[in-house]
Amino acid sequence: MRISDSERFVDSDIIGRMEKLRYAIIGAGALGGLYGGLLARAGFEVHFLFHSDYDYVVEHGLRVETKLGDFHLTDVHAHASASTMPPCDVTIVGLKTTLNHLLDELLVPPTRDGGLVLCLQNGLGSEDACVAVVGPDRVLGGCCFLCSNKVGPGHIRHIDQGRIVFGEYGDRAIDVSSRVQRIADEMQSAGIDAHTTDDLPKTRWKKLMWNIPFNGLSVVLDASTKELVDDPDALALAESLVREVHAGAAACGVHVPEKAIATTIDVTKVMVPYDSSMRLDFLAARPMEIDAILGNPIRAAAEAGFAMPRVESIYRQLKFLDRGRHRSTIP
Amino acid sequence: MRISDSERFVDSDIIGRMEKLRYAIIGAGALGGLYGGLLARAGFEVHFLFHSDYDYVVEHGLRVETKLGDFHLTDVHAHASASTMPPCDVTIVGLKTTLNHLLDELLVPPTRDGGLVLCLQNGLGSEDACVAVVGPDRVLGGCCFLCSNKVGPGHIRHIDQGRIVFGEYGDRAIDVSSRVQRIADEMQSAGIDAHTTDDLPKTRWKKLMWNIPFNGLSVVLDASTKELVDDPDALALAESLVREVHAGAAACGVHVPEKAIATTIDVTKVMVPYDSSMRLDFLAARPMEIDAILGNPIRAAAEAGFAMPRVESIYRQLKFLDRGRHRSTIP
Repeated sequence: MRISDSERFVDSDIIGRMEKLRYAIIGAGALGGLYGGLLARAGFEVHFLFHSDYDYVVEHGLRVETKLGDFHLTDVHAHASASTMPPCDVTIVGLKTTLNHLLDELLVPPTRDGGLVLCLQNGLGSEDACVAVVGPDRVLGGCCFLCSNKVGPGHIRHIDQGRIVFGEYGDRAIDVSSRVQRIADEMQSAGIDAHTTDDLPKTRWKKLMWNIPFNGLSVVLDASTKELVDDPDALALAESLVREVHAGAAACGVHVPEKAIATTIDVTKVMVPYDSSMRLDFLAARPMEIDAILGNPIRAAAEAGFAMPRVESIYRQLKFLDRGRHRSTIP
Repeated sequence: MRISDSERFVDSDIIGRMEKLRYAIIGAGALGGLYGGLLARAGFEVHFLFHSDYDYVVEHGLRVETKLGDFHLTDVHAHASASTMPPCDVTIVGLKTTLNHLLDELLVPPTRDGGLVLCLQNGLGSEDACVAVVGPDRVLGGCCFLCSNKVGPGHIRHIDQGRIVFGEYGDRAIDVSSRVQRIADEMQSAGIDAHTTDDLPKTRWKKLMWNIPFNGLSVVLDASTKELVDDPDALALAESLVREVHAGAAACGVHVPEKAIATTIDVTKVMVPYDSSMRLDFLAARPMEIDAILGNPIRAAAEAGFAMPRVESIYRQLKFLDRGRHRSTIP
């Protein structure tokens, strides 16, 4: 017997439930398309919200190329509007933070019966926009260490990495809750390299140690990750940025192990040549996640009395480039 | 009676001499072409060393557009090689520092009887390359606060500013010597806005407060000075760089007045839109004066125990861009 949607979340308790959880994907791009696709392939009920790709996916399905095994979903629960989405247990937000003004409209339908939100957006404090819609108790946060691009309509290419690390947000970010564990178990059963964390701030800052230098420099220097690590000066600059972000985290009371500095660089050296999401946004004349990825950490560190002059230098340059591009394309 | 060249510099004493001094211009571009042209117009004997423009200038002369009054010199002492230049009293070096490896060859002929060298090159410690050729006692240094471009063969366009400030270098940089005053007097008589300084390090750092932010940012952000000061983030970044250079100077024991910070920005706001020399070099695929303008000040400050992280960020970016450009143009 299938319980009705209205009964489904009487106490928001997903822990003891035997049946599989139902997922919503808000922002079915490089990130949402991959993880949602993997869950759907494994037999989970996954509802995808598409924007420009809706018609294409309805007709042709969703194609995912991944070293986990290419697959093609022909029967996709595709939605052109959040209003047609059913209530879901877990709504994964893979939308760019530059579109957060849409969250009010997009998050309410799939979470209307008390479902959880898993915010996998880039940056620091990105969960706050979800909290503003559903309140603090239903928001989880996480980071994806992932090289994946949307290469065409309904067509995702996952080229390297793939780890997702998530956990409770805010005051709850002190241990791994049962609900977090349950979602991680389901993801792992779908072949996703999912991990839990009892220290989301550490996870976020650790990702910022990569995102700030490599997203930022890839735009201001118009270069792939490989071009950056292959050049002695770009590499030295990237390393100094990684160190500065590491120190910024410490100033905010977040102690990322020292060895993560070297690991961040080493991982990038052996990574396949990759265009960061910010560079792709820049090249495609889309807004860049400058404030989520650089502005918020700068402000958080500044509030703790710590300046990040190198990061700020890149931040100002990105703001200039972003503004200049809009100036030329929007007369 | 005209004294012979060999008698001319028996004791290198140019102070009491009644007759006008004889000048050599090494690097007759935007800077050397303007100041040398003004001296020649005023009746001084000025020998210009040209490179690619030699044939053109011999045939068509030297044209200078300036708010001081446009002029056209048809009878120019033009040289295609330093070896044909006579000994001169003052050899003005306006060559790019990226060509300093040529100084040995270019400086010896005009200075062979003991004449002085006035190094007007950009950067910090730029006089050292001249000192290496003629020794420490015959080198003066100075800075030009000048918006001038070479717009065609033998064609200089002076568009704004024009002040030149110079003085003794090294251990002698403690007062205004008679020889410095004599040269300044002659320049002023030729209509040049020439000033003396008893503190050349202060003059150089003051110019670096402009050169580092506005040369550097004009390349990494691909923008004119006007585009930079018109954008709130580029302006904020420029201001923070000016402050950092000001503090770097102080760390090196050079105390530029605090108000120079605001003046540097204010002057640029009212300046005509200008492409810095570094940007012009970059756009023309010529080597940029990255080490003279940024590298040397960074190293000087570091030796004094002071880090300039913002300046270093820009420096690293310039090095990357410079290398990348050569990579693409020289396969």
